[in-house]
Amino acid sequence: MFEELLNEISEKMVLVDGMLDQIVPDGKDPRVLYEASSHLIKAGGKRIRPFVVLKSCELAGGSESTALPTAAAVELLHTFTLIHDDIVDRSSIRRGVSTVHEAWGLPIAITAGDLLFAKVYDALVGQANPETASSDRLLQVVNTLTKATIEVCEGQILDLSYGSKASISESDCLNMIRKKTAALFEAAMRAGGIIGGAGPREVETLGSFGVKSGMAFQIADDILGLTANEGVLGKPVGDDLREGKKTLIIVHARRNGDERQRRMVLDSLGSEDVSDEQIRETIDILKEIGSIEYSRAYADKLVAQAKRSLDAFSESPAKRSLLDLADFFVARSF
Amino acid sequence: MFEELLNEISEKMVLVDGMLDQIVPDGKDPRVLYEASSHLIKAGGKRIRPFVVLKSCELAGGSESTALPTAAAVELLHTFTLIHDDIVDRSSIRRGVSTVHEAWGLPIAITAGDLLFAKVYDALVGQANPETASSDRLLQVVNTLTKATIEVCEGQILDLSYGSKASISESDCLNMIRKKTAALFEAAMRAGGIIGGAGPREVETLGSFGVKSGMAFQIADDILGLTANEGVLGKPVGDDLREGKKTLIIVHARRNGDERQRRMVLDSLGSEDVSDEQIRETIDILKEIGSIEYSRAYADKLVAQAKRSLDAFSESPAKRSLLDLADFFVARSF
Repeated sequence: MFEELLNEISEKMVLVDGMLDQIVPDGKDPRVLYEASSHLIKAGGKRIRPFVVLKSCELAGGSESTALPTAAAVELLHTFTLIHDDIVDRSSIRRGVSTVHEAWGLPIAITAGDLLFAKVYDALVGQANPETASSDRLLQVVNTLTKATIEVCEGQILDLSYGSKASISESDCLNMIRKKTAALFEAAMRAGGIIGGAGPREVETLGSFGVKSGMAFQIADDILGLTANEGVLGKPVGDDLREGKKTLIIVHARRNGDERQRRMVLDSLGSEDVSDEQIRETIDILKEIGSIEYSRAYADKLVAQAKRSLDAFSESPAKRSLLDLADFFVARSF
Repeated sequence: MFEELLNEISEKMVLVDGMLDQIVPDGKDPRVLYEASSHLIKAGGKRIRPFVVLKSCELAGGSESTALPTAAAVELLHTFTLIHDDIVDRSSIRRGVSTVHEAWGLPIAITAGDLLFAKVYDALVGQANPETASSDRLLQVVNTLTKATIEVCEGQILDLSYGSKASISESDCLNMIRKKTAALFEAAMRAGGIIGGAGPREVETLGSFGVKSGMAFQIADDILGLTANEGVLGKPVGDDLREGKKTLIIVHARRNGDERQRRMVLDSLGSEDVSDEQIRETIDILKEIGSIEYSRAYADKLVAQAKRSLDAFSESPAKRSLLDLADFFVARSF
């Protein structure tokens, strides 16, 4: 169903990866730093966020080449947060390979993340074509990505602090998702629009698509973390349960399960000793309560809102791609 | 001797701290993140790097208020590297207080560093006065601080990799110091000059002062780490020895000590079990070899070069302050 979209994403990936190679050359000295920094980039990833930048720029009337450094910058920003998140979450596998701290140790992993964060701005400013990207627009993009990073940091800390709380409200959970994940989708849309020449109103609209679809993306991701095939997922099923993550699914279950169901869910949360068997049982209970179905419906609603926010734009291939992408976020199996 | 300079630094500190409070308000939510992020800022620090920005801007003919956001940005950048460095070096005390990871744990410390790094750009772009700082100049400053951060990351990794090597060359050692410490002084001088309206040639000259004086600063710092009073230092004397850091002092000793002296120095390097008594003996041996004197002379030579690089600028209060500052870097006892 999404064949055309996925083909287009793969096509753009080649362009983005070419630029990423230039910005983070894995043979540069000190070699260990550049190898560690490019490790997760080379391990895969769908390059969805750079794709969002390119399409938003196109929708605003800008050219692909103008948006390419910004697209690469957004992927670098995403990868930097992955490296540091994996340390925080003590994850050992990502994209089917060792996480950076697992392979290189903590000091190099922290520094590799920092390097990629610096490379975000290096890509934006150093790779920009001054003929098509004015200094004013570039500064706005710098500002947009910076604000997003601040929100991602805040979201990371909310996620951490919720981990130790027995119960959080749905609005706390959604706020955390908005900051930790959706802020970067919002920034990708805004940055693409700005660099493509969109006015302030258009940028708001594009950003709104980014927030809503980004939240849907994360909720779908949390569902996949429980229901997907491990090989496809690139990490163990149920890891979120072991880490005690307060996903929308868990928040729903804690408020809607009966006594027995709530206890079962609680017992398998936040402990690394939980058996695969117990994880499977917990997932069955989450289905029983209807928490997975509820979350799926919530994500669908967000996608519908995201798509509606593009109503003001007339039909175009770029708009079609973004609408398909929003649908894909919740329909995907990987 | 440096009373006038130190008074001036304290005076400017009030301005810089006012802006830092605005950019990283310690009561903001999530509170734990903002408290952790502002912890080292509030614990002290001489605010030398922001002072360098202000004076370089003044030397280039710019106003203090134009340079203030850039000055704050440089201090934020410095503090971010301190938080992550302390994790990497497993330091538990800094500026007489607990390090961030010691007080808040690893996940919050990593994220607090990331937040401050983002706040660097937030300060630069968000706090800039568009009437006095053009977009072009701001982008050049963004670029300058970004390049410096990349060098700091590379220097950090060199420092780490040298720790496990028995011996490194003097030029490797100096290259590491240039990247890990002097790059930020260079960037502070360049950024101040750019925002103050200096042309490309002037910016180069200002940068040269920053590199030379910054290297002298670090070498003097390494000497103080062995010879200063613990209370004044804010951390244990000899920590660099316990960490196995390859300072210029150690590199000199390894190449110029006799068999017995080299073995004694080697024995107390890189082990946390070394007694205070053994640290004192090692310091005596380093003096015996002449390594401390050699390093001091090297730093003095760098300061002389730094000062000469400002020859092209006519006498002015700002020039006087920078010349005094360079002298202070090697004469200070804290």
